[in-house]
Amino acid sequence: MKKISLIAILSFVCFSTNAQTKDSISMKRIFNETLLNGNAYQWLYDLTENIGPRLAGSKEAGTAVEWAKQKMIEAGADSVYLEPVMVPHWVRGPKENAYIIEAGGNKQTVQVIALGNSVATPKDGITANIIEVQTFDELEKFGRAMVEGKIVFFNHPFDERFVNTFEAYGEAVQYRWKGPSEAARYGAVGSIVRSMTNAIDDYPHTGSMRYNDSLPKIPCIAISTVGANLLSKIYKANKDVKFFMQTNCEMKDSVLSYNVIGEIRGTEKPKEYVVVGGHLDSWDNCKGAHDDGAGIVQSIQIIKTLKALNMQPKRTIRIIAFMNEENGLRGGRTYADNVGTKNEKHVAAIESDAGGFLPLGFGLNMPKDKKAKIKKWAPLFLNYGIYNFSGEGDGADISALEKHNIPLIGLHVNSQRYFDYHHAASDTIDKVNKRELLLGSAAMGSLAFLLAEYGLN
Amino acid sequence: MKKISLIAILSFVCFSTNAQTKDSISMKRIFNETLLNGNAYQWLYDLTENIGPRLAGSKEAGTAVEWAKQKMIEAGADSVYLEPVMVPHWVRGPKENAYIIEAGGNKQTVQVIALGNSVATPKDGITANIIEVQTFDELEKFGRAMVEGKIVFFNHPFDERFVNTFEAYGEAVQYRWKGPSEAARYGAVGSIVRSMTNAIDDYPHTGSMRYNDSLPKIPCIAISTVGANLLSKIYKANKDVKFFMQTNCEMKDSVLSYNVIGEIRGTEKPKEYVVVGGHLDSWDNCKGAHDDGAGIVQSIQIIKTLKALNMQPKRTIRIIAFMNEENGLRGGRTYADNVGTKNEKHVAAIESDAGGFLPLGFGLNMPKDKKAKIKKWAPLFLNYGIYNFSGEGDGADISALEKHNIPLIGLHVNSQRYFDYHHAASDTIDKVNKRELLLGSAAMGSLAFLLAEYGLN
Repeated sequence: MKKISLIAILSFVCFSTNAQTKDSISMKRIFNETLLNGNAYQWLYDLTENIGPRLAGSKEAGTAVEWAKQKMIEAGADSVYLEPVMVPHWVRGPKENAYIIEAGGNKQTVQVIALGNSVATPKDGITANIIEVQTFDELEKFGRAMVEGKIVFFNHPFDERFVNTFEAYGEAVQYRWKGPSEAARYGAVGSIVRSMTNAIDDYPHTGSMRYNDSLPKIPCIAISTVGANLLSKIYKANKDVKFFMQTNCEMKDSVLSYNVIGEIRGTEKPKEYVVVGGHLDSWDNCKGAHDDGAGIVQSIQIIKTLKALNMQPKRTIRIIAFMNEENGLRGGRTYADNVGTKNEKHVAAIESDAGGFLPLGFGLNMPKDKKAKIKKWAPLFLNYGIYNFSGEGDGADISALEKHNIPLIGLHVNSQRYFDYHHAASDTIDKVNKRELLLGSAAMGSLAFLLAEYGLN
Repeated sequence: MKKISLIAILSFVCFSTNAQTKDSISMKRIFNETLLNGNAYQWLYDLTENIGPRLAGSKEAGTAVEWAKQKMIEAGADSVYLEPVMVPHWVRGPKENAYIIEAGGNKQTVQVIALGNSVATPKDGITANIIEVQTFDELEKFGRAMVEGKIVFFNHPFDERFVNTFEAYGEAVQYRWKGPSEAARYGAVGSIVRSMTNAIDDYPHTGSMRYNDSLPKIPCIAISTVGANLLSKIYKANKDVKFFMQTNCEMKDSVLSYNVIGEIRGTEKPKEYVVVGGHLDSWDNCKGAHDDGAGIVQSIQIIKTLKALNMQPKRTIRIIAFMNEENGLRGGRTYADNVGTKNEKHVAAIESDAGGFLPLGFGLNMPKDKKAKIKKWAPLFLNYGIYNFSGEGDGADISALEKHNIPLIGLHVNSQRYFDYHHAASDTIDKVNKRELLLGSAAMGSLAFLLAEYGLN
């Protein structure tokens, strides 16, 4: 028995070494091809500069759908098709207008932007006194007596001590998401939120908010951090400060749009899928280079890379450009619903939606045994600086797949610069480094290929 | 015996756990203070925008010396002093001029810059035929018959397959460093080198070269990658292409300059030193934000951080702004000579000279047993994304300390963007992210503090 065991162990070691060597060569090919001949950066230039902002429901989002389909065909996908999705159609209307009115009457214009899904102010705007709070606790302490008839200013800065800026965002974003309704609970007539960013600059950052249907819907805006600091300074010097805000946004009827899907068909198990994607829509005020044009072009690049290398995987790799992540998640939800209806078998889903920055790891949202299988590949990834498999974050578009118990994976990248540009007009192609973008594609392509070769069972 | 061993082991484990906890708290304090109250970015803005380019020997380098001294005093150093260094004084003179002359006579201006330490062309410039090579082997094959009287164009692009761009630089930079003399060996009258960068843009990147004293000294320039691609295209279409180059540089007599040194005095072993530094000089064509203003402000920040926290280390931490890294390394060599003369005991020396990008690890150049001691701290650093202790690179300024067997350490950062800006006019403050810069300072400060607390013996 002992002898047999030893032989069994030795064969296993040899097999596993050979597999690792073979996988290591596959990854080297993917990285080399991507870095040498990758088109992702040029595609991103085209998407962001020639199509530009592409909020779900807009004409430009429709153009982007056609664009993504065309790029997947050019990249060599075995099949490309559209998946219909009904999406909300929120429109900003003419640019917002806002200023501070100091106690003496002096007016100071500040840079603001309506939050996504917000209702508009009355046509001529709102003028009201300000009350500044940093937390919901403070708001509650002030209560209706102090808040009624005022505009609540949520001035909650990012906590710079978080090394991962997504943690600072996670802590602060509640004031954007549910701040307006919490302010309305105490009779506020409007809500201002400090932009969700580490940067101190004059770009206002928009983003989604959700009304609590049991409370009045009040108009809400984000103010640039420069504007927030100014408003706070004036307010602290003399609390009798008024604010004027005028927004023109409107929620229209839902419209038909699409997820764009391109496949590399599996040679052995074509009915088992590995999903890789990002979201095609962006906010209407920004070109969405990092959020999430990057994820889209990185994903499409995987088709081009594997086809150029003639590396047809055993299972099907399905590249998805999701629609409507920003203000509804309808693309991701519709895809998940259809997976359920069609009872499709998914090995895993990977998303890149944290910017096209240097890849550092993968967040794994799945049971321990499956995590362990992925972590066995960690030494292969370490050669490319991808060291961190300890996180759990995945991606908003793929999150609805959790209900089918599909293992979810998020590309984890350098987070330091992301919120400087997130949902702001500064999210442009010049903030993207070509090699960082390509490395992210190669990292996801490698993991997708390994998952498609071996599965996770 | 067994029992005693077990107790001994347990005590060791307890001690080591307590020490790790204490060290973990020290590091948390350093990172928090740096991220919340760090001045490094504002200092870098001042150094690069208000003083600007500061080549050793220039008036601006002198201003930078006074500036660094002042900042170290403001940061709260226990003592600040200047160490005299004789430095070369190379001056560019009026801007270079160059164009391609196509076979038909058509002229196309290209962006070029004389290499540091180069001799000038004759006053009216040189016009000669081009011969393009990618390697020294090709040059040798062409030989004197093909090369004599011509300008050699070394068109060796970065190999994009290297994940660490410093490896691509390491392979290509020989054509800048010794290309001119190798060209002169076969009778060339001038030398052009493709700029050392991953970027395709119109900035020429300068850098040091060294003449072989046994060969004629010919003028040498770098050409932007856009210019290099154009020249190569024209040359390949018709080899009868001429090139005009005119440079005005000159090596003058050496002048007196200084390393700037600030110390946090050790409480228990003040005569044992941990060095942390970067270089204060930059090339004359660029403001040197990443190279190496970043290393300077990160190092001075350590003084401010430890003083703000009242964390006086057991051994002395010596912050050094070295002079003349770019074209002579005289600052680093002088410091090393003085260490020898004074027989000073150094625990280790750390340098930041790879740009103010996201810190990822430390290169360790020292014997295995000392490496092992540093690697025991790796789990503490992993909390801050600093995972890589496998490299060996240190830093040019501290490299001369190797002769005294001093352990050398280089801050290892994200390398993807560095050569886009290196030695070019594009190396400006807007390419630096404040948080990445501060994280690098906190990483070096933490390691310096641990080294100063525990030594390496």
